Amino acid sequence: MEFSSKLLEQAVIEVSRLPGIGKRTALRLVLHLLRQPETQTRQLSDALVSLREKILLCKNCHNISDTAFCEICANPARDSRTVCVVEDIRDVLAIENTGQYQGQYHVLGGKISPLDGIGPGQLNIRTLVEKVRLGQIDEIIFALSANIEGDTTNFYIYRQIENFPVKMTTIARGIPVGDELEFTDEVTLGRSLMQRIPFEGSQKLN
Amino acid sequence: MEFSSKLLEQAVIEVSRLPGIGKRTALRLVLHLLRQPETQTRQLSDALVSLREKILLCKNCHNISDTAFCEICANPARDSRTVCVVEDIRDVLAIENTGQYQGQYHVLGGKISPLDGIGPGQLNIRTLVEKVRLGQIDEIIFALSANIEGDTTNFYIYRQIENFPVKMTTIARGIPVGDELEFTDEVTLGRSLMQRIPFEGSQKLN
Repeated sequence: MEFSSKLLEQAVIEVSRLPGIGKRTALRLVLHLLRQPETQTRQLSDALVSLREKILLCKNCHNISDTAFCEICANPARDSRTVCVVEDIRDVLAIENTGQYQGQYHVLGGKISPLDGIGPGQLNIRTLVEKVRLGQIDEIIFALSANIEGDTTNFYIYRQIENFPVKMTTIARGIPVGDELEFTDEVTLGRSLMQRIPFEGSQKLN
Repeated sequence: MEFSSKLLEQAVIEVSRLPGIGKRTALRLVLHLLRQPETQTRQLSDALVSLREKILLCKNCHNISDTAFCEICANPARDSRTVCVVEDIRDVLAIENTGQYQGQYHVLGGKISPLDGIGPGQLNIRTLVEKVRLGQIDEIIFALSANIEGDTTNFYIYRQIENFPVKMTTIARGIPVGDELEFTDEVTLGRSLMQRIPFEGSQKLN
């Protein structure tokens, strides 16, 4: 695309560096900003810059946070001896939105994935193992994605802490609430049969 | 969505004010920025703010421009007596990308659309009519969208200048190059039959 304006061109180039945004979409977004009051662009820009410059990682769980310890870790009502291990902050948000979890989190920052060049050393695994060794955790709940990288990561952590007195669980895999049985994939359906649960307990949340 | 960080929340809110971007996409974009070097966020922010603060509208054609007259209007090689009338800057970019046009543009800034509350007064029509009245234009090429608002706008302009010695044309409507005849809508196919062109001239561009 040829632009008659260098300012426009620069803005489109920068916006289109964001993932999933091509030149055409970037142009649409930028032209939209031009039609809005100048304050909107200023607010957007300020929000992004101050986020990038001021954001911290929680010293306890590695979740992103405005303060040295995130709101969840700083909350005395949360059970610090139950720790849910997740990949990234989006998983924390998803679990928080259920309102069903009162423990803390441990954000790994990804999964072990040799194909992408991500080994255990790049993830926040050491600090988790350390907490277990110091006897600070009663239960670890693995809540990584149910795929080969997730399983590998779970297993890697498991091997590091298997000799310590910590209970390890994973979130239940099964048929999503509201889904039709006939459209469920075989692996999920198979697992949900093998790991069936007592009927009395199954109705609790609904 | 509940965020554990006010900074994150603010950034997501601002990004999701952009058209077609929901909270979930905004979060993905913002987290992407957090994983990139700080300079990228800074560059994005600077590009948007300086575009919004410094951009001008070309005094001749109303195209957006870094200077009082846009690169196209300032270019002496372009034919200032042929003017292509378009809705907005995206149309200018599209036509420039063809490399087939050597005249100037006139950017209306939209189409007459009473349902959206846009009347002729909100568009850059007066300046175009003025140029025609002063005898500065030999040919006006209407290149608005082929829908009822586009046709209304064309006709409104036509009525204002019909008594002046200016040639008026519209870009050809027809079957897109490479398209199958059987899948073309009836209106386009009908028009392309009625407005058929001599065979010798039709092969020029391909």
